[in-house]
Amino acid sequence: MLVLVLNAGSSSLKFNLFDMGKELSLAEGMVERIGLPEANLACTIEGERHRESLPIPSHREALEAILERLKTTVLHETPIHAVGHRVVHGGPKYGDSVLVTEEVVRDVETFAMYAPLHNPANALGIRTAMAAFPDVPHVAVFDTAFHHNIPDHARTYGIPYELSQKYGIRRYGFHGTSHAFVAARTAILLCRPLRSLKIITCHIGNGTSICAVNNGKSVDTSMGMTPLQGVIMGTRCGTIDPSVVEMLMEYEHLDYTAITDLLNKKSGLLGISGVSSDFREIELAADKGNDRARLARDLLTYDVRKFIGSYATVLDGVDAITFTAGIGTHSTYVRAKVCSKLGFLGVKLDPEANEHGTGERIISTPDSRVTVTVVPTNEELMIARETVR
Amino acid sequence: MLVLVLNAGSSSLKFNLFDMGKELSLAEGMVERIGLPEANLACTIEGERHRESLPIPSHREALEAILERLKTTVLHETPIHAVGHRVVHGGPKYGDSVLVTEEVVRDVETFAMYAPLHNPANALGIRTAMAAFPDVPHVAVFDTAFHHNIPDHARTYGIPYELSQKYGIRRYGFHGTSHAFVAARTAILLCRPLRSLKIITCHIGNGTSICAVNNGKSVDTSMGMTPLQGVIMGTRCGTIDPSVVEMLMEYEHLDYTAITDLLNKKSGLLGISGVSSDFREIELAADKGNDRARLARDLLTYDVRKFIGSYATVLDGVDAITFTAGIGTHSTYVRAKVCSKLGFLGVKLDPEANEHGTGERIISTPDSRVTVTVVPTNEELMIARETVR
Repeated sequence: MLVLVLNAGSSSLKFNLFDMGKELSLAEGMVERIGLPEANLACTIEGERHRESLPIPSHREALEAILERLKTTVLHETPIHAVGHRVVHGGPKYGDSVLVTEEVVRDVETFAMYAPLHNPANALGIRTAMAAFPDVPHVAVFDTAFHHNIPDHARTYGIPYELSQKYGIRRYGFHGTSHAFVAARTAILLCRPLRSLKIITCHIGNGTSICAVNNGKSVDTSMGMTPLQGVIMGTRCGTIDPSVVEMLMEYEHLDYTAITDLLNKKSGLLGISGVSSDFREIELAADKGNDRARLARDLLTYDVRKFIGSYATVLDGVDAITFTAGIGTHSTYVRAKVCSKLGFLGVKLDPEANEHGTGERIISTPDSRVTVTVVPTNEELMIARETVR
Repeated sequence: MLVLVLNAGSSSLKFNLFDMGKELSLAEGMVERIGLPEANLACTIEGERHRESLPIPSHREALEAILERLKTTVLHETPIHAVGHRVVHGGPKYGDSVLVTEEVVRDVETFAMYAPLHNPANALGIRTAMAAFPDVPHVAVFDTAFHHNIPDHARTYGIPYELSQKYGIRRYGFHGTSHAFVAARTAILLCRPLRSLKIITCHIGNGTSICAVNNGKSVDTSMGMTPLQGVIMGTRCGTIDPSVVEMLMEYEHLDYTAITDLLNKKSGLLGISGVSSDFREIELAADKGNDRARLARDLLTYDVRKFIGSYATVLDGVDAITFTAGIGTHSTYVRAKVCSKLGFLGVKLDPEANEHGTGERIISTPDSRVTVTVVPTNEELMIARETVR
């Protein structure tokens, strides 16, 4: 059974084609810079890498370009059986993956009020793919679904109750497929049932969120109504004093669109460091002594550490801390720094395993009361699994 | 030596008169509803309580009414030697108490940009008192000063660095005199030097802030650039997704003044419960089964608990947790609930001491790894001490 997984951004389209019999990725890749004079198509098909620049004016042409390359290779005889779509925001309505109907697409568009940068692109991706594959089931898999049942005291904001009700303002949380995936893998690494574990999952990438997972369920998470709240991120500010938003709008004369743009795209590690939103470049600059890059690096590790402590009180202790996503999987520095002041929790990092191992592994010492793991996430596979389910 | 301590709000003036030889309060009280047809003057002079309603059009008349009562009683022979003023925001400039000059008053007015609800009133109070006592020293004691040296990684927001520099946007923190006072008292209760202790101080009242105190110094605190950030409060929202601010402004057509008013005065426990901003009334309603009052109560205890966990990682452990201010001192429920999931930190509350004791005391069991204390705060005495110093 072949499942195509699509993740549409405002000017990008990522894909992954799975043979779900063996849970094997046959092809993956992405189109970037859609709509710009020179778009990039990069993909790996049956282990072979392709890369080309060509004009791709819209998502429709992006999908066509991808399918053209797939049809001459892995898809030439076998049809696609289903398409799974990553959707960032499921709003108050979707607590689980869902078969796409016209109503679902309209809901995804409506919930753009909570995810203005993501949901319109997700909906566009679905519409494009439904036109290309009108006869196969399409499934929407929501980033918010895993957090759908976090308790009221963890998701209610301290604004007037009536306003929260009127607009559906509450913590939704994101990266749900990732947190669910790495929590399950962590249980396997620990050889213990997920249903008996207190796990704190740290998805640290260009977007970052931390999640408290109790017996396999999300009970709190650092992102909020939108993916802007919580830990400082590549270009997003994370948690700030709400008064700062008002003040910037007033003093810098920013409207809704301009402040959204500022806090989502020009802030975070990029805004602090002035170097880049890419953490590898920030680490390089910090190592060379750039003070603002060092500050950006410190802010990230400090935020993550504070969330771990806070979620330890939510769970009344912690069995495992898991690092995933780009930075979480690759930055030995971040993991070491985050764990450096967790001794009181019983965390003992094994520097050797942290520095030199690769892939899914335990990086704490055998006598560490809390097991620390690295688990590369695989959101695409989770979406494919959900699509099959 | 007599020191008059003044705390001016937008429509109120609190006072406390200390004989600093014995650190004894001779008189205290407040004028409320200044400018309204019926203002209230309530005071206790040498143990005797007075209360009256009278027209008090301005802060000048309020101070005159207070002095009139003092001059016929405790002040009739002895002059006031100095006046200490509580000032909420010292901006980036004041890391210590300061003798008031015209420049200082102008700075207090300038820093209204960070504390629009408090600093203008504080400045008015200073000007009024300087006119009444032109020949004695006036001292400004800042709520922010104790937090003046928290590290950069704890006070920098994830917004573009240039904007933070331009407007002095950063975490300042508040309730500094209270956190400093109760941390020092806690060290005395523990019979250990403050300079060797990791203390988390929980000032929980109508305004609430939590502080990580390392060796007597504030290293992080929950309030931010303004007193709006952090734990949910009587009428303040606490931390929310920054996008919620933008969304409310856009969807409810609110300008700077209206959103500031909404988030500072109509939100928090009042906005959630719909009952009151007074926690005693919320507890009563919650006990009677009011769901929204229960939610408000849960939000408060959950927030405080999460900050304790987060500051335990900041301090790499914790020796003592201290409760103070109205709710912290009086609500046995809040203390019990906050400590209920801190077992992993080694916190063992003594239910008897928590329920039945009064005043300054230890409320954890003798074998608790973390000592939990209740310390009624005394910000006025701290301001008087600073004034003498």
